[in-house]
Amino acid sequence: MDINGVRRFLTENDNYTILTHISPDGDTLGCGFGLCRFLRGMGKKANVVNGDGIPHRYDFLCEDYSLQDYEEKCVIAVDIADAKLMGDRLKKYQQPGAVDLCIDHHVSNTKYAKETLLDPTAGAAAMIIYEILSGMGTITREVAACLYTGIATDTGCFRFENTDYRAHLYASKLIETGIDFYSINRKMFELKSRNVAAAERAIVSEMKFFLNDKVAVNVISLETIKKYGVEPAELEGIPSVALTIEGVLAGVTVKEKAVGTYKISLRTTDELNASQICSDLGGGGHIRAAGCEIKGELSEVINKIVAKISEYM
Amino acid sequence: MDINGVRRFLTENDNYTILTHISPDGDTLGCGFGLCRFLRGMGKKANVVNGDGIPHRYDFLCEDYSLQDYEEKCVIAVDIADAKLMGDRLKKYQQPGAVDLCIDHHVSNTKYAKETLLDPTAGAAAMIIYEILSGMGTITREVAACLYTGIATDTGCFRFENTDYRAHLYASKLIETGIDFYSINRKMFELKSRNVAAAERAIVSEMKFFLNDKVAVNVISLETIKKYGVEPAELEGIPSVALTIEGVLAGVTVKEKAVGTYKISLRTTDELNASQICSDLGGGGHIRAAGCEIKGELSEVINKIVAKISEYM
Repeated sequence: MDINGVRRFLTENDNYTILTHISPDGDTLGCGFGLCRFLRGMGKKANVVNGDGIPHRYDFLCEDYSLQDYEEKCVIAVDIADAKLMGDRLKKYQQPGAVDLCIDHHVSNTKYAKETLLDPTAGAAAMIIYEILSGMGTITREVAACLYTGIATDTGCFRFENTDYRAHLYASKLIETGIDFYSINRKMFELKSRNVAAAERAIVSEMKFFLNDKVAVNVISLETIKKYGVEPAELEGIPSVALTIEGVLAGVTVKEKAVGTYKISLRTTDELNASQICSDLGGGGHIRAAGCEIKGELSEVINKIVAKISEYM
Repeated sequence: MDINGVRRFLTENDNYTILTHISPDGDTLGCGFGLCRFLRGMGKKANVVNGDGIPHRYDFLCEDYSLQDYEEKCVIAVDIADAKLMGDRLKKYQQPGAVDLCIDHHVSNTKYAKETLLDPTAGAAAMIIYEILSGMGTITREVAACLYTGIATDTGCFRFENTDYRAHLYASKLIETGIDFYSINRKMFELKSRNVAAAERAIVSEMKFFLNDKVAVNVISLETIKKYGVEPAELEGIPSVALTIEGVLAGVTVKEKAVGTYKISLRTTDELNASQICSDLGGGGHIRAAGCEIKGELSEVINKIVAKISEYM
């Protein structure tokens, strides 16, 4: 479906359920609440549904928001590359034909929906939502705050390679609506508790280097999380740390999910394809940021991901 | 002088010396080399002059750049709020009447030049240069890289409160010229050596809290700099760290310049005016980021700045 088709779909239908992905981030939630608020502003009924629940740091996206009561007629997935990323609690939407429209920017999108608007050149799915909505009517400040959050978070506040002239142009338009973008930036990119800061320092001070210091590995253990009294979601700044070290081409974060189960986040410079490396290990993602899960002893897990990276180096 | 006056001044004259401030940052250098390259593109003669020399991290701004030989006829200061910020090596330009035109965005500008184009609402002086030049002709990729660097560095890569819709709009236009903005962002905001990363961790792990944890102080001692073998300029990320801690309203960095002499950098949230606090101590700057120098024992110096902050709290 093209962008005009999506506009018609949104105008001609009603009673929307908007799905966002598990471990929700600023982009999926910004898309979800931005689209939901816009549709409600059109007099439509719409809800945002997430299989994991929404972390408190995104509370500002849901201010003055409450679920509406209606008989669901259309299901839209935003920023969800694969039906399984809806999570177990939303299994019913994982069935073939359950999702009417998927709006996404992941090149790995599995086309699970009846219709898909996919733009893998967009740094954030919220950029696609902006393009759709800006052609349909006025974007209010409330909608703008959601879409800005999506664009800013997925582009690392306009720092990452996936930023482009469009990301800045849309941010410029969204800021013109009068949103408090600085408060959003503070919440998304700056503020952390002393405990989180201390946990980050502890983790990074144990950073391990491999393959002539071209690969750096940070480990987030359950023990560290317990010791500093932090939530795993509060340590999401860690994956970007390794690549800030000169000479590092691949930054690996190994996060202990349960004893013997580790979630791997891989960030790469333009010399390595993170998506390919993680696909080989049963995961996936973007070309510079991808993930997978590996089971085993910590040292085995690290050896496995480092060995896989070395294959591509 | 208004913006059209500046355009006429640049068109009608020749043989420009462009002055940038001591301890040069991305904005003053981006303005200087951007303007210089644009003028040379017009067939004019122009040089950039700095009283301190240019740190290696900005080498990319001066690629293919060499000084031209000519008899100086016009002197332009960019991003220099006060003549004394030219530094001792450029004393001759500090004389009254020595600077023909100053282009600046510091509200504290002392109007030392014969003519001044001042826009304190611009987050970066490079935004003013962009406005001038975009009305005069095509902005080449080389000029665009300089101006992008100025805008990105002074706005904390579009994160700080001084960012606005114009900053994003100009960034969008500059990126459209095809600059490698990601490589600039990597150099400016991400890459550091292992030594620098270790020095930063060591400094931050000793962060001191005052006034019910509302003021946080990081100390950069000559001893730390020596121990980790880093350049003081490599630790310029430190001043922004304190404000990332929840509840901190004022982040102070105390940098030992010589035994008994400390340079203070103050960053504040919107509840405190950094410029006012530092002015009281003989310094100055912006409303959220300012500096001053204090002499004495380290503990006295810390007490002095904390006491001054407490007056305004």
